[in-house]
Amino acid sequence: MLRIGIVGGTGYTGAELLRLLAQHPQAELVAITSRKETGMPVAEMFSSLRGRVELAFSDPAAAPLAQCDVVFFATPHGVAMAQARELLAAGVRVIDLAADFRLRDTAEFERWYKLPHACPDVLAQAVYGLPEVNREAIRTARVIGLPGCYPTSVQLGWLPVLDPAAVAAAGGDIVERDSLIADCKSGVSGAGRKAEVAALFAEAADNFKAYSVAGHRHQPEIRQGLEAIAGKPVGVVFTPHLVPMVRGIFSTLYARLTPAGRALDLQALYERRFAAEPFVDVMPPGSMPETRSVRASNLARIAVHRAEGSDLLRVLVVEDNLVKGASGQAVQVMNLMFGLPETTGLTQLPVLP
Amino acid sequence: MLRIGIVGGTGYTGAELLRLLAQHPQAELVAITSRKETGMPVAEMFSSLRGRVELAFSDPAAAPLAQCDVVFFATPHGVAMAQARELLAAGVRVIDLAADFRLRDTAEFERWYKLPHACPDVLAQAVYGLPEVNREAIRTARVIGLPGCYPTSVQLGWLPVLDPAAVAAAGGDIVERDSLIADCKSGVSGAGRKAEVAALFAEAADNFKAYSVAGHRHQPEIRQGLEAIAGKPVGVVFTPHLVPMVRGIFSTLYARLTPAGRALDLQALYERRFAAEPFVDVMPPGSMPETRSVRASNLARIAVHRAEGSDLLRVLVVEDNLVKGASGQAVQVMNLMFGLPETTGLTQLPVLP
Amino acid sequence: MLRIGIVGGTGYTGAELLRLLAQHPQAELVAITSRKETGMPVAEMFSSLRGRVELAFSDPAAAPLAQCDVVFFATPHGVAMAQARELLAAGVRVIDLAADFRLRDTAEFERWYKLPHACPDVLAQAVYGLPEVNREAIRTARVIGLPGCYPTSVQLGWLPVLDPAAVAAAGGDIVERDSLIADCKSGVSGAGRKAEVAALFAEAADNFKAYSVAGHRHQPEIRQGLEAIAGKPVGVVFTPHLVPMVRGIFSTLYARLTPAGRALDLQALYERRFAAEPFVDVMPPGSMPETRSVRASNLARIAVHRAEGSDLLRVLVVEDNLVKGASGQAVQVMNLMFGLPETTGLTQLPVLP
Amino acid sequence: MLRIGIVGGTGYTGAELLRLLAQHPQAELVAITSRKETGMPVAEMFSSLRGRVELAFSDPAAAPLAQCDVVFFATPHGVAMAQARELLAAGVRVIDLAADFRLRDTAEFERWYKLPHACPDVLAQAVYGLPEVNREAIRTARVIGLPGCYPTSVQLGWLPVLDPAAVAAAGGDIVERDSLIADCKSGVSGAGRKAEVAALFAEAADNFKAYSVAGHRHQPEIRQGLEAIAGKPVGVVFTPHLVPMVRGIFSTLYARLTPAGRALDLQALYERRFAAEPFVDVMPPGSMPETRSVRASNLARIAVHRAEGSDLLRVLVVEDNLVKGASGQAVQVMNLMFGLPETTGLTQLPVLP
Repeated sequence: MLRIGIVGGTGYTGAELLRLLAQHPQAELVAITSRKETGMPVAEMFSSLRGRVELAFSDPAAAPLAQCDVVFFATPHGVAMAQARELLAAGVRVIDLAADFRLRDTAEFERWYKLPHACPDVLAQAVYGLPEVNREAIRTARVIGLPGCYPTSVQLGWLPVLDPAAVAAAGGDIVERDSLIADCKSGVSGAGRKAEVAALFAEAADNFKAYSVAGHRHQPEIRQGLEAIAGKPVGVVFTPHLVPMVRGIFSTLYARLTPAGRALDLQALYERRFAAEPFVDVMPPGSMPETRSVRASNLARIAVHRAEGSDLLRVLVVEDNLVKGASGQAVQVMNLMFGLPETTGLTQLPVLP
Repeated sequence: MLRIGIVGGTGYTGAELLRLLAQHPQAELVAITSRKETGMPVAEMFSSLRGRVELAFSDPAAAPLAQCDVVFFATPHGVAMAQARELLAAGVRVIDLAADFRLRDTAEFERWYKLPHACPDVLAQAVYGLPEVNREAIRTARVIGLPGCYPTSVQLGWLPVLDPAAVAAAGGDIVERDSLIADCKSGVSGAGRKAEVAALFAEAADNFKAYSVAGHRHQPEIRQGLEAIAGKPVGVVFTPHLVPMVRGIFSTLYARLTPAGRALDLQALYERRFAAEPFVDVMPPGSMPETRSVRASNLARIAVHRAEGSDLLRVLVVEDNLVKGASGQAVQVMNLMFGLPETTGLTQLPVLP
Repeated sequence: MLRIGIVGGTGYTGAELLRLLAQHPQAELVAITSRKETGMPVAEMFSSLRGRVELAFSDPAAAPLAQCDVVFFATPHGVAMAQARELLAAGVRVIDLAADFRLRDTAEFERWYKLPHACPDVLAQAVYGLPEVNREAIRTARVIGLPGCYPTSVQLGWLPVLDPAAVAAAGGDIVERDSLIADCKSGVSGAGRKAEVAALFAEAADNFKAYSVAGHRHQPEIRQGLEAIAGKPVGVVFTPHLVPMVRGIFSTLYARLTPAGRALDLQALYERRFAAEPFVDVMPPGSMPETRSVRASNLARIAVHRAEGSDLLRVLVVEDNLVKGASGQAVQVMNLMFGLPETTGLTQLPVLP
Repeated sequence: MLRIGIVGGTGYTGAELLRLLAQHPQAELVAITSRKETGMPVAEMFSSLRGRVELAFSDPAAAPLAQCDVVFFATPHGVAMAQARELLAAGVRVIDLAADFRLRDTAEFERWYKLPHACPDVLAQAVYGLPEVNREAIRTARVIGLPGCYPTSVQLGWLPVLDPAAVAAAGGDIVERDSLIADCKSGVSGAGRKAEVAALFAEAADNFKAYSVAGHRHQPEIRQGLEAIAGKPVGVVFTPHLVPMVRGIFSTLYARLTPAGRALDLQALYERRFAAEPFVDVMPPGSMPETRSVRASNLARIAVHRAEGSDLLRVLVVEDNLVKGASGQAVQVMNLMFGLPETTGLTQLPVLP
């Protein structure tokens, strides 16, 4: 049994970690911390856990985190980097669901998160926790920067056409790398469980809007991830939108095919690339994925469309932002780090309708 | 033209007042205050008002409220009572959409709102602003305590059977006055435009719950209102629920019919009572009202059902909590106070779907 | 492994059976029928099942149902009674999720469902599949009439106060049996996956209404169930409402306490009655259940409130209408019928948010 | 007073026409037809109209349409073209909200709508009813093909950069005309009030998906409209998505700027182009339009964004699909055709929240 700690369990990614780990056959929840809610039973805040999670929130200072095998940070940005060094020193692995260990470039981090980076040395050894790209590095990682919800869907969607092996096989770039467009739509749980007017039901319901159009924190992460995949510069424009639903991300990706790309069987390319992936489903030609088809599961589903009479490739990707986009991916990464079968505890079927 | 001031225009009842008054042919918006947002154009906060409302929020201290004909308080409880005396002294009429002038009994007010009442003398002259009950008193009132959203629907629903004239005509009580049940359901805008976790989209969407079951502030107001109508003690149990919709209240009212009540044509009783009311629609027998049938309008619709094989009267009432339950009723009251036709500015049709 | 057939798998209860049975360690899906969709892979209709359910819909006439251990009917009313006799003769157990085997009285059935009953003899041996009431009879039943979604919540809510043992211990009736009120609210999936205008998104969203107020098919089932529990006549008024959410039932139950009832510790009574029940959670005093706290799980949660200053008992019950209100209860019943641990395949945690 | 007929008033665009025309000071509703609902009072189907619209649905054969000044067709495709010739012969103007008179090319019409075109001669004289483009032609038109909901938003969004005058002033194309992308999102009311499984609440709620990705009927209309504006060939890829909300369209438009385009002040270009338009609001730089800011109003709002570090122009457009995208635009067109002030009956403020 893995001994597990969660720092900051009062948000949605924390609650989702609890849901998943309470059903994980190899996980033992040892501590969950919250400064504000110290002493409150977890199941009092999240009544869905009544009878199944007996833990109470504990004071971060007093929690036996150093005795855990792994500690998840489901906290605001900046918390993990303040505590990681000490935990690592105690032999604890760290999985940060926030942004502290995502961006390789501390200047970029500081620009977007308005915080100096507290431990560039730890960052230097951190692995970006996207198993479909970094599986082997994750197995031996001691600290993980887990991808953001949007970046997960966007990177999975473009992975097959940016993959250097596929590019080499095609005899050159498959898509025009400098002009990618990611038009992404997220459910409101992506905003977190924070008291903010913009996320109120009466603001977000029966409404649709774009936000952070001028610049969203996931933009540099998406570019960094795509460039790491491609091994070359990539230009991408990212437009996030807010959908009046609780869970789900839908990414509509546009890329212009090069002559080399137009000659390819793109459906086959995608199917091959993800054939061995347990959590990526390439749907048949002509499919229309929908977010509810992955609701509450760790799956991403992808459909590949070439626009009629055009050289435009359209890739449609769906995921549950709280699962494959956050806590499910965190558990997948944990399984890899500790040598468990990758799908352990992650086989629940999506909930539809 | 009536010169109008609004204190606290950043919430939903304030925004709805702006929507209604900007379309009111006799209203001139003179000032709208907000301590926090001083200087911000109103249309920047509520983009629906762009091009139609040029006003900016002004500092409460500097706003020319004393030069208005009427000032609406769309504020948290406690603000109106702090400013009412001064405004009244300047000859300004006051319409409070909060609770400061609803409860006649200051001890009851203090128990539920945890505030000492600042001006019992003003309260003594305040009129409860429910036109269907108090129309004549409203015409000459200088200060109005506007009914709460739930109390409006509940009082309208039981008015015909508690009305002393109807009771006298029936030869005694029509329903058992001591055991009324109001099972009420409200859209989330009723919680206001406050940053609170419980009103987040991801908390309230795709969910249904009861709240404040042990005691809600509208309970004493409902009882007071029903007793004022009946001229006798009334016992009522009130259960509020939260519906994942933006606007609307649906009240399901249960009352046990007395032998006198069972002998009556209740449909006819309701139709007669509201025949002259411009904003109350008694639907035909067997009707099922729905909240969207009054969305964005000042109407209440009522259906009267007698449960088959039972002596139970069921009255179904719908209203838009922000209009007939708040800002629309406020405008209706204003029209009465200033001798305008009661429906002025309130004739927009409901928005369906 | 149990060999399982599903007749009529294209609706929501069918899809939910598939979701639950595909994760059930002792279940082998042998056939799922649909006249209209013969040949279509199930996962093409419900993409949530892609990669997990390989079955295609088969022609009802050709499906090997007679070789199953148990056949579920997730069909419109009237289908199960046409096929049950033949299946039973072949030694197959039958669980009907529709109404064919719910009402004991065929005249009552015919009045509400406008169909003559095709097999009163089979009905005579059918067991009403509510484990909390009929567990022992279910173990040996050959044919089950599974309770409706509303009746499940209402019967669970009043079981402790109508239970003859509790009544005897209290020295007489705990509540006034002739004047019960069930004010119930359901998500729209309760209307099924049928093309009907009233269930369209643009009709049901951002709206709340009552329906079938003059008489709903679950009314006679509720009364029959409560009378079977109490062993005495019961009078109940039932008002169903439609909530703009996908899943969930919330029942607000009102009953007037007798003097004997007022003397009881009702919280303790409820806790005792359900102490051994794996799927009924009596929440602590003062709790407010919410439908999402049981979303996608087989749990019902109950809170017991006594209205202040009144003799009214209010019981709040939540369930997922597709799980405890239908397909989950069907699996629970199957587990009992075949001697499996009752919770097998039903231990997934609710999905919140 | 204009005498008005509506053919096919039982859908959402029909209901919205009724809402708008019942409040229009120059409109007299003479007849509204429905084959299925002949005799039913309109207000029985749409209870929002109770007390304000006294008309009943009449038999299409018997309705006095030939005595109207104008007849609106709020019908499925194919109905208007069967009746237009006769009405025009009687001197009645025709406004078709369906697609019969949108596409200039009958072969294109027949390809997408699977119907032969019944009256190419009438089509030849029809005017495309987009006032911002065709105002003068509309004034004298006898028959109008009203734009689709998506095409209205897309054409308004690109009008300023495709306008030949602007292109001439810029010294050449402003955007690359052959590679436009329209990523559009619509509320579910756009699917109409038809009983279809895909539009059920339990299918569409808490879900997001793309649809008709391989080809949508609005695609040829969009291309035709943009080419008519530009006077040159245009290439556009259109991806429609379904949003779980009732009303609203949000179009995210992407276009690559030419060197000439990069040199322009695009914000100023948009503001100038729409300065005199009563129903198009160009928002300030950096704005994020939201669909609710135009809910139930005839407005479109537009924000112009240039992606940082990229030559991509992003234009965000919102409209209410039932108003500016259908019935409101129809009334606007009617006002123009009959010499009324263009905004008559269309000045209601949007409903927010």
